[in-house]
Amino acid sequence: MRIARFAAAGKDPAYGIIELAVDAGEHPDTIAVLSNDPLAGVPVNYTGERHHLKDVRLLAPVIPRSKIVAVGRNYEDHAAEMGNEVPVGAPLLFLKPNTSVIGPNEAIVVPEGVTNLNFEGELAIIIGRICKQVPPERVPEVIFGYTIANDVTQRDWQASDNQWTRAKGSDTFCPLGPWINTHLSIEEASKLSIRTSVSGDLRQDGNTSNMVRGIVELVSFISSFTTLLPGDVILTGTPSGVGDMRDGDTVDIEIDGLGTLSNPITAA
Amino acid sequence: MRIARFAAAGKDPAYGIIELAVDAGEHPDTIAVLSNDPLAGVPVNYTGERHHLKDVRLLAPVIPRSKIVAVGRNYEDHAAEMGNEVPVGAPLLFLKPNTSVIGPNEAIVVPEGVTNLNFEGELAIIIGRICKQVPPERVPEVIFGYTIANDVTQRDWQASDNQWTRAKGSDTFCPLGPWINTHLSIEEASKLSIRTSVSGDLRQDGNTSNMVRGIVELVSFISSFTTLLPGDVILTGTPSGVGDMRDGDTVDIEIDGLGTLSNPITAA
Repeated sequence: MRIARFAAAGKDPAYGIIELAVDAGEHPDTIAVLSNDPLAGVPVNYTGERHHLKDVRLLAPVIPRSKIVAVGRNYEDHAAEMGNEVPVGAPLLFLKPNTSVIGPNEAIVVPEGVTNLNFEGELAIIIGRICKQVPPERVPEVIFGYTIANDVTQRDWQASDNQWTRAKGSDTFCPLGPWINTHLSIEEASKLSIRTSVSGDLRQDGNTSNMVRGIVELVSFISSFTTLLPGDVILTGTPSGVGDMRDGDTVDIEIDGLGTLSNPITAA
Repeated sequence: MRIARFAAAGKDPAYGIIELAVDAGEHPDTIAVLSNDPLAGVPVNYTGERHHLKDVRLLAPVIPRSKIVAVGRNYEDHAAEMGNEVPVGAPLLFLKPNTSVIGPNEAIVVPEGVTNLNFEGELAIIIGRICKQVPPERVPEVIFGYTIANDVTQRDWQASDNQWTRAKGSDTFCPLGPWINTHLSIEEASKLSIRTSVSGDLRQDGNTSNMVRGIVELVSFISSFTTLLPGDVILTGTPSGVGDMRDGDTVDIEIDGLGTLSNPITAA
């Protein structure tokens, strides 16, 4: 099931279930409107309304009420390209605030006075249940689904600032979308191709099978010290190939089964 | 005005206005119940109910819907005691998630298998309006009030983890309270005594006048890259004297005009 948040002309944002042409269903490329928030733990209720996808604007599929926890240096090839080692102890974790989230096709804004703004294509885990100290065997129960994230990073601030609050947490630095796929097993989500293109040039071509810490280890470890809430997001790290985005570029991140997250870049 | 969140027996949490004996008013040591959330930007509405303070439990005065931004090494004497320099460029900023917040008299839990859990008494700024890129002269307009925070820190994780997510962001690592004082000017908030005691022994005896980056600079700088929302919290750094808290201790942080934030420490 592909769950999206969207806005139809003149209406408030709502949740909906997307049916694509590839699904070979009765309603290709449409979105069926829900009357409720599927992350609130209630059954999915359809209003009976349906829109063509071309008539709606998809929004970030979730605005976390608590946190986005992101993992650094979780692919060996990316750690190496930055001149870093993969952490040997605890995973390298940082936070991005919910104010950094934007949706598909929204602009990533280059802050005034800086260049060196990097894309990082990543698989994002969406948490579905309040949980703490989740043992590995129970991780599947707390995952709601998966989407795509761009862990936008300003490299100069990352180098100068000790903690990465500004480098990773500025407004527009966390595009999420286009939808949440709720029907992938952890095993399936652990062998997905991730491809990032900048204005049509392929720049990252990785696979989630190369994550150093897998989905189970990450969720279990993060929940060992912090309570996760429904709608919290975990970014699982980026493969090699990261690089610059500039005013006028468009960044497309494609993950098998999750669609393509596309965002234009604009100067402040 | 002292605004608190509280729970009376058998009732849902509510906001209220505290009247203390020192106010020499008609209702000493009581809380007047509000029908609304004063951070929602609407006028304060009284229900007409009033409780004695001894009959209610004060809660964290705010659970941020977005973020807690904290400042590291913002007092020279504290930076020096940790063997660090005060940052010369941007302030050292890190995030604590809203899941780390607890209220007055709630227990700070020492995670299993660690010691070296430190208190850090701090002045906390509560943001009252959505804002971005606030110029220094407009900072007074976006501040709702002030409260006390304990920026609880696990020193071993802080040393080993590169980013301080676990060291500063674990559950119970952000006590806030006991109330929000909305009637302090920035000038007044910039010359307050901060005293922290552990089980009765005075350990920190600082003053907000010694902050390296003042309230105006912090709010203006943080809002330069991230949108602040009503209820967001900024922790302004700690003076020297930080140290261990252990199972069985009680930590009291007292700031002039803001009361005392008291929390017991318990093992997991």
